[in-house]
Amino acid sequence: MDRLRKIGFAKLTSLEDSLKNLFSHVSILPSEEIHVFQSLNRILAEDIFSKIDVPPFDRSAMDGYAIRAEDSFGASPTNPKILKLVGKIEIGQKIEQELHEGEAIRISTGAAIPKGASAVIKIEDTELKENIVYLHAPLVPGKNISRKGEDIIKDSIILSKGTELKAEHVALLCSLGIEKIKVSTIPTVSVFSTGDELIEVGEPLEPNKIYNSNTPMLISLVKLYGGKVIHHATLKDDKELIRKSLHEASNNSRVIIFTGGTSVGSQDFLPEIMHEEANVLTHGIAMRPGSPLLIALFKESLVFCLPGTPVAAYVGFLKVIGPTLRKMMGCSKIDPRIELLAKMSKDVPVSTLGHLNYLRVKIKREDGDLVAIPVKLKGSGIISSLTQSDGIIEIPPFQEGLKKGEKVFVKLFPK
Amino acid sequence: MDRLRKIGFAKLTSLEDSLKNLFSHVSILPSEEIHVFQSLNRILAEDIFSKIDVPPFDRSAMDGYAIRAEDSFGASPTNPKILKLVGKIEIGQKIEQELHEGEAIRISTGAAIPKGASAVIKIEDTELKENIVYLHAPLVPGKNISRKGEDIIKDSIILSKGTELKAEHVALLCSLGIEKIKVSTIPTVSVFSTGDELIEVGEPLEPNKIYNSNTPMLISLVKLYGGKVIHHATLKDDKELIRKSLHEASNNSRVIIFTGGTSVGSQDFLPEIMHEEANVLTHGIAMRPGSPLLIALFKESLVFCLPGTPVAAYVGFLKVIGPTLRKMMGCSKIDPRIELLAKMSKDVPVSTLGHLNYLRVKIKREDGDLVAIPVKLKGSGIISSLTQSDGIIEIPPFQEGLKKGEKVFVKLFPK
Repeated sequence: MDRLRKIGFAKLTSLEDSLKNLFSHVSILPSEEIHVFQSLNRILAEDIFSKIDVPPFDRSAMDGYAIRAEDSFGASPTNPKILKLVGKIEIGQKIEQELHEGEAIRISTGAAIPKGASAVIKIEDTELKENIVYLHAPLVPGKNISRKGEDIIKDSIILSKGTELKAEHVALLCSLGIEKIKVSTIPTVSVFSTGDELIEVGEPLEPNKIYNSNTPMLISLVKLYGGKVIHHATLKDDKELIRKSLHEASNNSRVIIFTGGTSVGSQDFLPEIMHEEANVLTHGIAMRPGSPLLIALFKESLVFCLPGTPVAAYVGFLKVIGPTLRKMMGCSKIDPRIELLAKMSKDVPVSTLGHLNYLRVKIKREDGDLVAIPVKLKGSGIISSLTQSDGIIEIPPFQEGLKKGEKVFVKLFPK
Repeated sequence: MDRLRKIGFAKLTSLEDSLKNLFSHVSILPSEEIHVFQSLNRILAEDIFSKIDVPPFDRSAMDGYAIRAEDSFGASPTNPKILKLVGKIEIGQKIEQELHEGEAIRISTGAAIPKGASAVIKIEDTELKENIVYLHAPLVPGKNISRKGEDIIKDSIILSKGTELKAEHVALLCSLGIEKIKVSTIPTVSVFSTGDELIEVGEPLEPNKIYNSNTPMLISLVKLYGGKVIHHATLKDDKELIRKSLHEASNNSRVIIFTGGTSVGSQDFLPEIMHEEANVLTHGIAMRPGSPLLIALFKESLVFCLPGTPVAAYVGFLKVIGPTLRKMMGCSKIDPRIELLAKMSKDVPVSTLGHLNYLRVKIKREDGDLVAIPVKLKGSGIISSLTQSDGIIEIPPFQEGLKKGEKVFVKLFPK
């Protein structure tokens, strides 16, 4: 340990290898059955098949008249075809009536097409006088009819296991009458910020102390990624206290996050404790910011020690912990961030070759293009560099930098 | 009213004019004070000024030794400079000790810089033998020191009124020790799906009926946009029942949403009721899908009648209701959707000139580009066209279509 403190990390692992190793130890959480109304933002734990055809019957896509298409052939505003109005069909109505040659039935959008009809003429293309319908346009057969099963065929797969359910998925499930679905249980998380220098919001600022911002940030991020922080605390740099907190958290948390004290400062107890208590998978990842990250297995829990500087902690969460939470839920897209394409506003050199470098940028729309503007910053402790940015460009380990005008993919911050 | 039913909307209003008129009637909701830990996703109702400098004191950005920069000039691994180790400073510690020429003080990341020191040399660039520190690199003054106020200067504005608070904003507020903040109150919403054809999930499907999917979709969308559905119900096509529901909802809901029956079907009571009871601002907007949208003022509430077809209701929400909710909260960005730039995968003609047309597309990464692929679809009732898409291209009213390879802005669905 002394050596580690003195020389820093013996060796930095690539992010790719770190995640590969970590994910080989991640098991999918059990599923639970919930009501579809409660399913927003949950991760589907089963494939969903449709038990019905959608639409479940041939229905009108317009307000108008159900007719035989051939009765409209040749119709125009100056030479209208003439049909006899013989009835009307509302949405949701059962229909027995059959349509014959020369007849029209008034029909609402969504109502079932009567037997014998082959098209619906929209009301704007007709005129009605004393039960006679004048058609002003010809229709091809099938016009304005939504066919049974046209959207979804019975027994076909409509949503796959691992889908994150958004408003449109909830609507789709409901439209199929699906009431109960299986989703992954929510990963339980404990968050500990460590450091003698930390004081809490609401307290007065003492000399040489700083406010704890990592705990609320991590609570928010865990929530955005689908997990739930069930316990959080701020701990002094006290080795036995930290050790005790690790043991206690392992009783109910699948994921335990510590921040602070992961580097080689002389009060950095976390690596020591982890090497003594847990199975350390990785300590030190070749990325900037965020390199002093430690990943360990302890009993049934995954343990992550993030650097105490907020931006490094933020990036460490986005690249390692967030994807792990989603992996545990069986999510098919473990990195939920949106990627967009933009042009660099200027040259950016890279200071640390061999590391995966994260460049914070702001996105601006300019002359029909999206431009990525690097946010001026000095250190990884500067949270305002996050609130002033929209996302991150990931510069691969052996790329020397970015050129003005170069096309870049920007990963937006999770919202 | 008969005329309206027969000929459809007398005149469609442009979306721009509809919103302009609507927004002139929108007033900002009152604010409430909450704890910063509860502030994720809320809208700030005040400008926030920093009461402190950040960092609050000069501090070390590295684990290493605080030194006088000039004592390192000329240092190299083969010709190290030599300093005497005279102490150590931990994070959060108050310091009295002053550093003199020829001395080094061990310092942790985040710890306060001692008087007399002008740089921090990182531990990797040093060697320690029997209280003698060997420097292997020269430093410029200020190296590895984060200056007091370098990130944020006391009394400067750090977040503006109207900001939507995300994880990084929560962290920023906490880092400044701000415990209580003023945010907009959450708009209350009632949702009514109308139609004799609707049955609820969990019930067996009857002939010619369909499952109600609009209510859960709208509950989810309202939540995503920062509002709260406090009441919802499914109503039969019964004019007096709908009228009564409107009156009751106006007692506690700032926004009332009806779906279904907004067009010219013979059971479409909503326009009639609104013209009788409320101040109708707009009925019929020149956009596709979603044109049969009605906007009205009723007592203290804003009333929206959306078409019953789910995709039209979804689009109507994104373009009109969602932005209204955010406008009510004083949000500086009333449309939260992310816009990205992509290339069209193929030609797309536009069928309805004079309307704002919405094209659903899927985004794919292809050869270092983002490509927008139109989702094949037949009608605005097809919810799976939403779950299969990533977003919408908005084609202005008098543009004839899109060309293969053309650069387009895609507005992603809200997540």
